[in-house]
Amino acid sequence: MTASQKILNGDRLALARLLTKIENNAPEGRDALIELFPHTGKAHLIGVTGAPGTGKSSLVNQLALHYRKTENKKIAILAVDPSSPFTGGAVLGDRVRMRDLSGDEKVFIRSMATRGSLGGLAQSTANMTQAFDAAGFDIVIIETVGAGQSEVDIAKLAHTTLVVEAPGLGDDIQAIKAGILEIADILVVNKGDRPGVENTEKALKSMLDLAHPTERIFRHHGSNMRVTGQAQKASSSLTWIPPIKRTISTEGVGIAELVESITKHAEHLRISGDWAVRDRTRLQVELEALIQSSLMNRFREEVSEKKFNEVLEKVFQRNVSPYEAVKMLMNGRLK
Amino acid sequence: MTASQKILNGDRLALARLLTKIENNAPEGRDALIELFPHTGKAHLIGVTGAPGTGKSSLVNQLALHYRKTENKKIAILAVDPSSPFTGGAVLGDRVRMRDLSGDEKVFIRSMATRGSLGGLAQSTANMTQAFDAAGFDIVIIETVGAGQSEVDIAKLAHTTLVVEAPGLGDDIQAIKAGILEIADILVVNKGDRPGVENTEKALKSMLDLAHPTERIFRHHGSNMRVTGQAQKASSSLTWIPPIKRTISTEGVGIAELVESITKHAEHLRISGDWAVRDRTRLQVELEALIQSSLMNRFREEVSEKKFNEVLEKVFQRNVSPYEAVKMLMNGRLK
Repeated sequence: MTASQKILNGDRLALARLLTKIENNAPEGRDALIELFPHTGKAHLIGVTGAPGTGKSSLVNQLALHYRKTENKKIAILAVDPSSPFTGGAVLGDRVRMRDLSGDEKVFIRSMATRGSLGGLAQSTANMTQAFDAAGFDIVIIETVGAGQSEVDIAKLAHTTLVVEAPGLGDDIQAIKAGILEIADILVVNKGDRPGVENTEKALKSMLDLAHPTERIFRHHGSNMRVTGQAQKASSSLTWIPPIKRTISTEGVGIAELVESITKHAEHLRISGDWAVRDRTRLQVELEALIQSSLMNRFREEVSEKKFNEVLEKVFQRNVSPYEAVKMLMNGRLK
Repeated sequence: MTASQKILNGDRLALARLLTKIENNAPEGRDALIELFPHTGKAHLIGVTGAPGTGKSSLVNQLALHYRKTENKKIAILAVDPSSPFTGGAVLGDRVRMRDLSGDEKVFIRSMATRGSLGGLAQSTANMTQAFDAAGFDIVIIETVGAGQSEVDIAKLAHTTLVVEAPGLGDDIQAIKAGILEIADILVVNKGDRPGVENTEKALKSMLDLAHPTERIFRHHGSNMRVTGQAQKASSSLTWIPPIKRTISTEGVGIAELVESITKHAEHLRISGDWAVRDRTRLQVELEALIQSSLMNRFREEVSEKKFNEVLEKVFQRNVSPYEAVKMLMNGRLK
């Protein structure tokens, strides 16, 4: 049996090996992914992001426990840590998780630290997600640390993106970013027993109102949908207003309600047609990233290191500008 | 007079216009940068990064004030906000700064929000830094928000990188990241009057000890240098141990000592030869990013949108995998 057949049959060891191959960018990983690809497209991909100190990991842990206990779903957690070239933080996080989730055959936890470039990380994340999807996991939670562009990029992978905030981080001018709100399908105020939780929620509500000023609110089957003024009849015009959910993840408070919101969002995506839109966008981003790395690999094959270093030295000596250097290197390549 | 001549003569309006052209990726910006490039390489580039809530902006403000008052240096501040597609946060931050720094001809503050891709942002940052450098600013402070890969990438631009922490954010497993420590030349514990400041410092010290376990410490002219065991005589073997500096930026406490550390780090870079190493690395990263975007532009010219969308549709239908799709597109291009 090939590795991919084993994975389709639910072999955890074969899956673990493939994930390592993907992380190391090994060619056999690529072959397996080509075989697995037709079996993807079924999992609900949930992105979870937020600043350090918001209790994201513990929240993801509770979500996974809830999905296991009440819905008997197969869950994969992929913890992506773009800020760390080591696996230190992620491994520590895993140990905390292991206490509650270890030994459960229907849970798979994997952490990935960055190796090399951000492009490489996004690609590995996409590939690992596909492996989990093909392996029959119903829910794949992609957890990222931080509040930078990498989170926005990785959030593009998910159907549903949770942005986690916590009281006490919001007193800085830059703490609540419009950009991070933009990618949120659901806002979670975790550590909801801390002082200042109302202020955090209020600040988030104001930001949301700023982001959606012209829309009218329609309650649609009790979910948080809005219909825009111009095209209320077309289903694709249904707009999702991110709900704000309060949780205390260390005590499991608010988790059931949060899962309910996630489910409603998935329904919204199906009804509005946005599920397919997000799928297509994700695949397009992935395709473009692959093209970019292929082009760069080809360039490295065609322009010798010696030539590259000669040109770099000229730039370093301020004899030619970077733009002129690129022109020299690219013309050389196409001569 | 051309725009670049005006900039070399200290014309602030011409500089402001060039920065806008750089942000908009306008071709005239590129021409000016080619002319300015021979005049770059003199400024001390200081990166300042850290999670939201650490008081980075206020710290940068104080640093600039100190450089103005005590050293009469020309200062540029470039506030880069990769998480925000809007300029909201950055503009607000600028207003706070303006109170103390406005009207000073030798201070230039510019904020940049992300437009499009991260690659684009890193490139714009590099270009703006070059413009400030050529315009004769002694110090260019590049401030980034967040704790992700984008910060690591932007930190590569700087000679000296400050990582800012604050008490009360450090109680999360993932709050203090090994990866973010790795890029730090100087660690700043800001909000030093808050409870828990000793714990934050202790945690940072432990992390530093983990990161530098095998080195022996030599005090060298009172600065924080270490000499590695194997090659104590070669100057390039001088290793810098990041000092931990406590500040209360809102009150200006610890700023003079922090500036002293920054100056020592610059001396260290000159003595050890690392100044040139960092310069070269920065230019290499920039060159590679430019090559990448040029290759992608060329690909877009050569592969029609129709062809691309046809292949994307096949991927979306799960008929071909992304890898196979790239092969189809790249072969088409080279046929």
